Amino acid sequence: MVNKNAPKSVIRRLPVYLRILDNLIRNEVEVISSKDLSEEIGFTAEQIRKDLAFFGAFGTRGTGYNTSFLRDKIIEIIGLGEQTNIVVVGAGHLGIALIRYNVTKNPYVNVVAGFDVDPSVIGENILGVEVMNIARINEIVERYNVKVAVLAVPAEQAQAAVENILESGINVIFNFVPTKLYVKKGVYVHNADLSMELQSLIYYATAENIKDS
Amino acid sequence: MVNKNAPKSVIRRLPVYLRILDNLIRNEVEVISSKDLSEEIGFTAEQIRKDLAFFGAFGTRGTGYNTSFLRDKIIEIIGLGEQTNIVVVGAGHLGIALIRYNVTKNPYVNVVAGFDVDPSVIGENILGVEVMNIARINEIVERYNVKVAVLAVPAEQAQAAVENILESGINVIFNFVPTKLYVKKGVYVHNADLSMELQSLIYYATAENIKDS
Repeated sequence: MVNKNAPKSVIRRLPVYLRILDNLIRNEVEVISSKDLSEEIGFTAEQIRKDLAFFGAFGTRGTGYNTSFLRDKIIEIIGLGEQTNIVVVGAGHLGIALIRYNVTKNPYVNVVAGFDVDPSVIGENILGVEVMNIARINEIVERYNVKVAVLAVPAEQAQAAVENILESGINVIFNFVPTKLYVKKGVYVHNADLSMELQSLIYYATAENIKDS
Repeated sequence: MVNKNAPKSVIRRLPVYLRILDNLIRNEVEVISSKDLSEEIGFTAEQIRKDLAFFGAFGTRGTGYNTSFLRDKIIEIIGLGEQTNIVVVGAGHLGIALIRYNVTKNPYVNVVAGFDVDPSVIGENILGVEVMNIARINEIVERYNVKVAVLAVPAEQAQAAVENILESGINVIFNFVPTKLYVKKGVYVHNADLSMELQSLIYYATAENIKDS
């Protein structure tokens, strides 16, 4: 489902909506008022309405949202309907951790291969995912119709790895390298940020701020 | 700055505000209207006003927000005014990656030690951070007034590690282990979720959805 005008901030919130809807459906909530949905998700009802309006009108005035319908729509909007194949470029500590993490945690995404240039890790098998020579990336991307690369190489190798990734036809990069990447127009780079999550935790390090919720 | 009523969802957004304000200040924007701030941050003006209202009134009607004032307030609210000391429990691939990542990326947070039970990693030094025997956690937490533990051990060791962490006096855990942790009341556990970020990326894997913004 294409909407060229939806800002990144809206797209970033869609998985939050998806997770809450998944929870509601698990708890057999079929319909939810926009006020209750707002409380569950933690965004104002206006924010939710505005976000969803980029893609259509999904609520019914007076009754609210049908949870299954909205969940399916969001899956369709993001494009999670069928499992997406990704690769992880860089099989050092972080790359290996990301492969493991994804293999165990993510139902929508499938890691088909890891890549590296270091002969000592090439051939390793991480929970069923093989680490291959980066020279094989074109072949794998074509075979598995890979759309997204997770980048986890040392900073000094990042730009060379980006060239390999782009040449393979991938144009979405989830970048874990703390360095600026240079890419051609039409390529989408998202920089990972674990530190924002960590920062918000500091709030709770003041014992008085912990409440049960 | 204590507000027992601020929901988690609001606290989680504070670092987003902080990052945007840091950018605005870097670009010498001193005052910003609530409409322009809304566009920069990607939340509706109402959402921003409602979030900030948990902590006070920070805008001026007719002019908007003073960026430096608001940035300083948010730093104060989260408690980022002085560097927070944290420890990483588990020095496998993920733990080592998290130590490295934080050491290089996060100005507000300082990793004082890693901990493990495996003699083959105890004594390792990761960018200046020593991996110690978990038996030393009480001593280190007391010495550095540590408030937060990042948990990155294998799933089967998670609950034992949690006991060690809580006994040391830490009561905020950033959990990277895909398993449910049992903690006493008053302890705050935040489960890391890289997969939501990855999911939102899938949207851009449809080439038509990539726009320059």
